Amino acid sequence: MNHAVLLISCADQPGIVAGVADFVFRHRGNIVAAEQYTDHADGTFFQRVEFELDQLDLARDQIEPAFAEVAERFAMHMQLRFTDDAARVGILVSKQPHCLDDLLARWRTGELGPAQIPVVISNHPDHEAAVHHAGAAYSFLPVGSTTRAEQEEQLLRVLARHRVDVVVLARYMQVLSPRVLATYPNGIINIHHSFLPAFLGGRPYHQAHARGVKLIGATAHYATEELDEGPIIDQDVARVSHRDSVEDLARRGRDLERVVLARALRAHLQHRVLTHRNKTVVFE
Amino acid sequence: MNHAVLLISCADQPGIVAGVADFVFRHRGNIVAAEQYTDHADGTFFQRVEFELDQLDLARDQIEPAFAEVAERFAMHMQLRFTDDAARVGILVSKQPHCLDDLLARWRTGELGPAQIPVVISNHPDHEAAVHHAGAAYSFLPVGSTTRAEQEEQLLRVLARHRVDVVVLARYMQVLSPRVLATYPNGIINIHHSFLPAFLGGRPYHQAHARGVKLIGATAHYATEELDEGPIIDQDVARVSHRDSVEDLARRGRDLERVVLARALRAHLQHRVLTHRNKTVVFE
Amino acid sequence: MNHAVLLISCADQPGIVAGVADFVFRHRGNIVAAEQYTDHADGTFFQRVEFELDQLDLARDQIEPAFAEVAERFAMHMQLRFTDDAARVGILVSKQPHCLDDLLARWRTGELGPAQIPVVISNHPDHEAAVHHAGAAYSFLPVGSTTRAEQEEQLLRVLARHRVDVVVLARYMQVLSPRVLATYPNGIINIHHSFLPAFLGGRPYHQAHARGVKLIGATAHYATEELDEGPIIDQDVARVSHRDSVEDLARRGRDLERVVLARALRAHLQHRVLTHRNKTVVFE
Amino acid sequence: MNHAVLLISCADQPGIVAGVADFVFRHRGNIVAAEQYTDHADGTFFQRVEFELDQLDLARDQIEPAFAEVAERFAMHMQLRFTDDAARVGILVSKQPHCLDDLLARWRTGELGPAQIPVVISNHPDHEAAVHHAGAAYSFLPVGSTTRAEQEEQLLRVLARHRVDVVVLARYMQVLSPRVLATYPNGIINIHHSFLPAFLGGRPYHQAHARGVKLIGATAHYATEELDEGPIIDQDVARVSHRDSVEDLARRGRDLERVVLARALRAHLQHRVLTHRNKTVVFE
Repeated sequence: MNHAVLLISCADQPGIVAGVADFVFRHRGNIVAAEQYTDHADGTFFQRVEFELDQLDLARDQIEPAFAEVAERFAMHMQLRFTDDAARVGILVSKQPHCLDDLLARWRTGELGPAQIPVVISNHPDHEAAVHHAGAAYSFLPVGSTTRAEQEEQLLRVLARHRVDVVVLARYMQVLSPRVLATYPNGIINIHHSFLPAFLGGRPYHQAHARGVKLIGATAHYATEELDEGPIIDQDVARVSHRDSVEDLARRGRDLERVVLARALRAHLQHRVLTHRNKTVVFE
Repeated sequence: MNHAVLLISCADQPGIVAGVADFVFRHRGNIVAAEQYTDHADGTFFQRVEFELDQLDLARDQIEPAFAEVAERFAMHMQLRFTDDAARVGILVSKQPHCLDDLLARWRTGELGPAQIPVVISNHPDHEAAVHHAGAAYSFLPVGSTTRAEQEEQLLRVLARHRVDVVVLARYMQVLSPRVLATYPNGIINIHHSFLPAFLGGRPYHQAHARGVKLIGATAHYATEELDEGPIIDQDVARVSHRDSVEDLARRGRDLERVVLARALRAHLQHRVLTHRNKTVVFE
Repeated sequence: MNHAVLLISCADQPGIVAGVADFVFRHRGNIVAAEQYTDHADGTFFQRVEFELDQLDLARDQIEPAFAEVAERFAMHMQLRFTDDAARVGILVSKQPHCLDDLLARWRTGELGPAQIPVVISNHPDHEAAVHHAGAAYSFLPVGSTTRAEQEEQLLRVLARHRVDVVVLARYMQVLSPRVLATYPNGIINIHHSFLPAFLGGRPYHQAHARGVKLIGATAHYATEELDEGPIIDQDVARVSHRDSVEDLARRGRDLERVVLARALRAHLQHRVLTHRNKTVVFE
Repeated sequence: MNHAVLLISCADQPGIVAGVADFVFRHRGNIVAAEQYTDHADGTFFQRVEFELDQLDLARDQIEPAFAEVAERFAMHMQLRFTDDAARVGILVSKQPHCLDDLLARWRTGELGPAQIPVVISNHPDHEAAVHHAGAAYSFLPVGSTTRAEQEEQLLRVLARHRVDVVVLARYMQVLSPRVLATYPNGIINIHHSFLPAFLGGRPYHQAHARGVKLIGATAHYATEELDEGPIIDQDVARVSHRDSVEDLARRGRDLERVVLARALRAHLQHRVLTHRNKTVVFE
């Protein structure tokens, strides 16, 4: 059953919840899920309201205009989404295939819902057969054979040609320029192989080994200009010990990276993530 | 800041959310938290709505009568609570003190909010000094010196005399009769030292050791007539290995029991738990 | 660097550790890892000793005869393995591909070490392309088109033809007969989609949902005649809530199943698992 | 049953395990636990060997002299401990009582084994009654009423008078001078309320909240001159969300701090922790 999803943020004030609920009710929708949160630091109200469409007296493209009166009354920032939105996910990957393989397998088994993976882009040629087998296009864009700027130019063209909505950095070890980041605001999800903000920067498993930590982590976050500083969507950790070599940490870490990245992508695709300043609100 | 909490359940139907939100808004309340859930197995709708009282145009005792019209319209089951309700918690404990000590320490440091612990009842005399030190009364009610029925009679009298609202079985190893259970419906929280429904019945750490499990658990649930079968409020597990003896399992288990029981009690005291058939809805 | 692995069990008695260590030292081996455990319930001693081969004054096939004197002195049960043993893993799978996909991906990336996956057997035709893409043979053995006994006959022949050492039941939903189990003693690893011994039997996610648990689990164990009762190798759990439908539990469960099965297989392949009565000793 | 514990480190070389095992066997000891680890970065070998004393042909004070020959042969650093060592634990605490209360409760229930807590020192007067109730001395040493140097002078005198072996900083918010640290090398255990090395320095829960992390942690480590940089003994984390205020993070964090500090102290008291450069080897 397909539902509409309203994502709302505005200054907190009485009457918002009633205003939104009344709008849905008046148009014969039925609210099936509603979550709200107020950031008391700056008094910002956030809400995610999901409602049934089948009895609604508005066509999909009439909802936003009809809601405009409510949105204006509360000076809301609002987004309208649908649970059957078939987001187009472009995956960027370097050498290591574990996150790529995992996402392709989840796509195959329907875990990504209606989302599609039209294209995988890599600076390595290695994954072509696996990607073709999964049914996506493969674009090998080496770095170094051309200037980085040219490679990014090509990358943006490939993403645009495949009408990509969401970019997943599935262990893509190249830094993206501000221009690419600006093309997909809050639309690029990175998996960082540490518990941010511990071990910022390169080779976090080496850093973790050198520090002798007893847990290692992985962090999925939106990519922003400040490397490793973007809004965190999900994190997890696993227990390690002095016995674990850097290679062991990397192997255990891969199990974390797969799951954390997939959870974050799923939350994003289900329109459950709002960003605010440098943080996320992730509704259940 | 004190808030009102509405806990609602009824058959799912359009307009409930709007009806409740409109009620609060009309009376100049401001909703600070609202969570809902629909059990699709039988179409039951649940909601927890928390709203500010300071601008409300109703006195506390006027809210329920004023809400009656909404409740009737949707044939709701409703409860009204307040975040400053000073619940009176009675603790029952046998020999092992770890959950008792933990709850007393949390009370001392204010973690239980406005709740009070007027009395601790035990079939052992051991905890009297610690309980008195914490500022509660101690009632030593041995089992066996009298019949069980008489002991329960005394127990109910002590609980009544201290006007106890919530009973916590903090490793109380006696089975309660239906009569005691009926006196506190959904008001008796037990900590079971296993991951229910594994290892039902007695000596679960012995059972876990014999089975060679790699994780042990603890479960906080409402006590019901079906032993170990009441609605689960919270659970957690810890990793163990072949090296752990039954005593090691018990020791690791105590750390779980303390935390799981405290989390469940806290959820109960914050009016975040609804029960439905044999399950709980625990709002965040 | 390739090492020898001695797996030992015998009645506990003074001198075992010295006897084994002295044997390795006399033959110019260097112990790189040694772990021991005594089951005090019946006084059984277990040890795993891993030592370097490069300076050893014995050829690989001379080690066991040379060790015979030590083994006899302590009436040991002993197994000799090598870290470069290229175990041949046969995977059995039904409809759901997530564990199969995961193991094939781990094989591809070298995470299974020297192990090979020569063949995948299924009672469904669905996985043929994925398995061929990964480089293994695919044997489609439907159940029902022939009697179960005949299908098992074929299954055993396929396993034998591919010289399979270890059988992995990667969500294979058919019960194996005692004859198959007896062919691979402690050599068949199953992933059960619950935290055993909770929710024994079929449809554990439905059972978990009906019981309203707050955690779901997965258990990897050796398959034995007592269904779901074999020695547990590894387990893990994930947090769930009242919001999770049976399908949500299944989805979250798949992430557990993948990781727990892979960890158990890895422990088995590294000769770190000993079984004793109905339990395992899993050395780090 | 009381056992001896040998803690050994030396350059890795063949024959160490055999040399130690042979020593124990020759003197009629029985090894009940032995774990080893080699740090391949610098080729250092570590071992913990626990053996029974009851048949040993050496008195306790003869073991170390008798072992000297083995220790010299391998140029070992060695420590000899006994499982019935009654370590004297001094606790330092500031305002927050949760770790103090927890350790006193564990002491009361025997979880700290033969260890004693002769004295608790605080720069606040608040905990005197609780500490006296538990049976320890209380020393109120305010900071600021005198110079810090004088306060530390008194502190060292109190610790010495109570013959303290191990100092636990149970949320002691004062920085210790190098002189105090040097008095108890690898003998001062601190609980830091973050997942080190994330959120170094002050107010880590505020930092965690500002960064929007989805997990918070606690770290127990040996105190060294480099604040928050000492060898990590144990860590753990708990899941949080955008809903958690700084106060919620602190409350959830307290549950972590209690358990992580107690686990680290227990490992230390059981002679299972060796330090090497800035890391620990924690044997099971």
